[in-house]
Amino acid sequence: MTGHAIRTTQAPAGSTKKRGRLADGREILYFDECDHAVHADDKRSLDSASTSSVMRRDNVLGEWVTIASHRQDRTHLPIEAECPLCPSTPDHQTEIPSADYDVVVFENRFPAFSTPSAPTDGGSPSEESSERLFEHRPGSGRCEVICFTSQHSLSFSQLPPSRVQTVLNAWIDRSVELTTLPNVEQVFCFENRGEETGVTLSHPHGQIYAYPFVTPRTQRMLENARGYQRTTSRNLFADLLEAEIECGDRIVIRGRHWTAFVPFAARWPLEVHLYPNRQMAVLSDLSADEQEEFSSIYPALLRRMEGAFGFPLPYIAAWHQAPTHVDRELPYLHLQITSIRRAPGKLKYLAGSEAAMGAFINDVLPEEAARLLREARA
Amino acid sequence: MTGHAIRTTQAPAGSTKKRGRLADGREILYFDECDHAVHADDKRSLDSASTSSVMRRDNVLGEWVTIASHRQDRTHLPIEAECPLCPSTPDHQTEIPSADYDVVVFENRFPAFSTPSAPTDGGSPSEESSERLFEHRPGSGRCEVICFTSQHSLSFSQLPPSRVQTVLNAWIDRSVELTTLPNVEQVFCFENRGEETGVTLSHPHGQIYAYPFVTPRTQRMLENARGYQRTTSRNLFADLLEAEIECGDRIVIRGRHWTAFVPFAARWPLEVHLYPNRQMAVLSDLSADEQEEFSSIYPALLRRMEGAFGFPLPYIAAWHQAPTHVDRELPYLHLQITSIRRAPGKLKYLAGSEAAMGAFINDVLPEEAARLLREARA
Repeated sequence: MTGHAIRTTQAPAGSTKKRGRLADGREILYFDECDHAVHADDKRSLDSASTSSVMRRDNVLGEWVTIASHRQDRTHLPIEAECPLCPSTPDHQTEIPSADYDVVVFENRFPAFSTPSAPTDGGSPSEESSERLFEHRPGSGRCEVICFTSQHSLSFSQLPPSRVQTVLNAWIDRSVELTTLPNVEQVFCFENRGEETGVTLSHPHGQIYAYPFVTPRTQRMLENARGYQRTTSRNLFADLLEAEIECGDRIVIRGRHWTAFVPFAARWPLEVHLYPNRQMAVLSDLSADEQEEFSSIYPALLRRMEGAFGFPLPYIAAWHQAPTHVDRELPYLHLQITSIRRAPGKLKYLAGSEAAMGAFINDVLPEEAARLLREARA
Repeated sequence: MTGHAIRTTQAPAGSTKKRGRLADGREILYFDECDHAVHADDKRSLDSASTSSVMRRDNVLGEWVTIASHRQDRTHLPIEAECPLCPSTPDHQTEIPSADYDVVVFENRFPAFSTPSAPTDGGSPSEESSERLFEHRPGSGRCEVICFTSQHSLSFSQLPPSRVQTVLNAWIDRSVELTTLPNVEQVFCFENRGEETGVTLSHPHGQIYAYPFVTPRTQRMLENARGYQRTTSRNLFADLLEAEIECGDRIVIRGRHWTAFVPFAARWPLEVHLYPNRQMAVLSDLSADEQEEFSSIYPALLRRMEGAFGFPLPYIAAWHQAPTHVDRELPYLHLQITSIRRAPGKLKYLAGSEAAMGAFINDVLPEEAARLLREARA
């Protein structure tokens, strides 16, 4: 099978989107900062990857767990010359057929969620199952990879504002489009960075998951926000932001449109939440001004975090957006950045109390973390 | 300050318990397999450690998070000659003053929870606080360390049944006694093993936490068990065990009194639950026969896990017991053993989906893990 031709389909503000297909049929989307970028076809001979993930119901915790055993064979820390996220060269065909790119998104070859072309073994709906306690469903949905730059050794903190804007365009585009897929209940844009966080590829990239369920954390956030609204008629997240600003001890950056703070009950040694100053549900609700300020404030925040706790910093950056179909008014869009680095050279691990009981013990005082971040150089 | 004299206070079946104090006033308890063991006084000059942990309410998730910033300075991977859990020698005074011991329990010098002798800064109850969204309480409770053997290089899997019985005696004794402390809502006995799990001391040991709240995981387990009982009039855990036995695909060991299985919706590449075959709330409900079979079946299970996924195996072993004051009839005592090893040389990390959204993706098919464990040598 060969790659399909590239076609331009839509142009989000400030960048041009072009769609194509990889050799095994997966979709690839280029977000170009220049109108006349030309992208090559995928010249590889690539069989369709067999993906057959299954969601299983954990009745003890009331949560879905995804079993994706085909992922065991995925690419693991390749040397730079074999990086599958760099642009292709005549000698080395990667996941990105082009000789260069700005921001590119493509379907993961080893997805945790995908839309199977045919029903799979694990795909029978639970209603037909005689095993009431062993409820399972196909792991339908979609998993995409997003590359932030073609430069292998950069980090997100080093991107210029114009590039962050292009990444934001891609996040917004994907969040809107994936929401329209059947069965998708929540879209999650995130970046895992650092070998200590289990990242198998070091090229600057993130991921976008379109889940077929509302994730456990979001469910609990919504339950608490609903309870708070019932008793106070107010929005929990808006009140939390206001209280953090009023207190001030844990504020890291106070922008015109965004505020970054270490939460009062931070679970991780380094945990920062970045809130827009007004409530909204999803990334596509951001105004042009809010997008513009984000594009400089977020990399500056990352640089402060790297300055205070050491570079390169392992971290997880997670966008909390409203679910697709329920509770659009309760949530409050925000970006949560957490690191397991508790001091230069020391990591925080999830051990018995956290991993088995969900009871977090944080060795770093949130006010002290905020002070370190305020004093660090952006 | 010098150590207090040792006194024998109580004798659980099969072992003798002797109580003493360490130089800074912390309690130490020896569980001796031989009646006439003699234990030395603590000869160190040791200042009282300053401990002032605070529980903070995370309103977004509705959970308590413990901030214990004094723990940042705790002992980190000392070389064997400096192991603080080995018996003392004339040249090297450790946390255990005696020249030898079987099983010993003592209060953690760097506890996440403790009963402060005087009110601390963070200790004002939230009712008096004007900051409704910043609720906090003193981190009262107790944290104990339990050493399974005086031999530095052994692992739990290598303990003879007689020693496992002594450890079980100690777990039962501590679970019963700590339950009587003021504010204690749940007692949690666990073992973290392996540097990959963040263990800072390699000597075979576990920990016992007496929490001032019901942990988040236990709360959710109880909610689901309550919902199940309401609709079926049956016990969720008993039905799950029965369904696992009936299916058989995930059973690892089927004993007369205990059953070990990989759960249907396992979150971790290697996850085994060890259930007694009859429902009970806490460790002290175990009969003599059940204790005896556990003492051989549990180390055999650990040997199978090490055989299938490699020795030494990083793991967390966590006892799920009923909370102290609520819902004593819903829970089902069991031991949950999880490992982040997903293949020899490969680890599973918690990344964005798991850490930020609580949505677990497991790359190992539970039936395949169970097969590997059944075929491994005990």
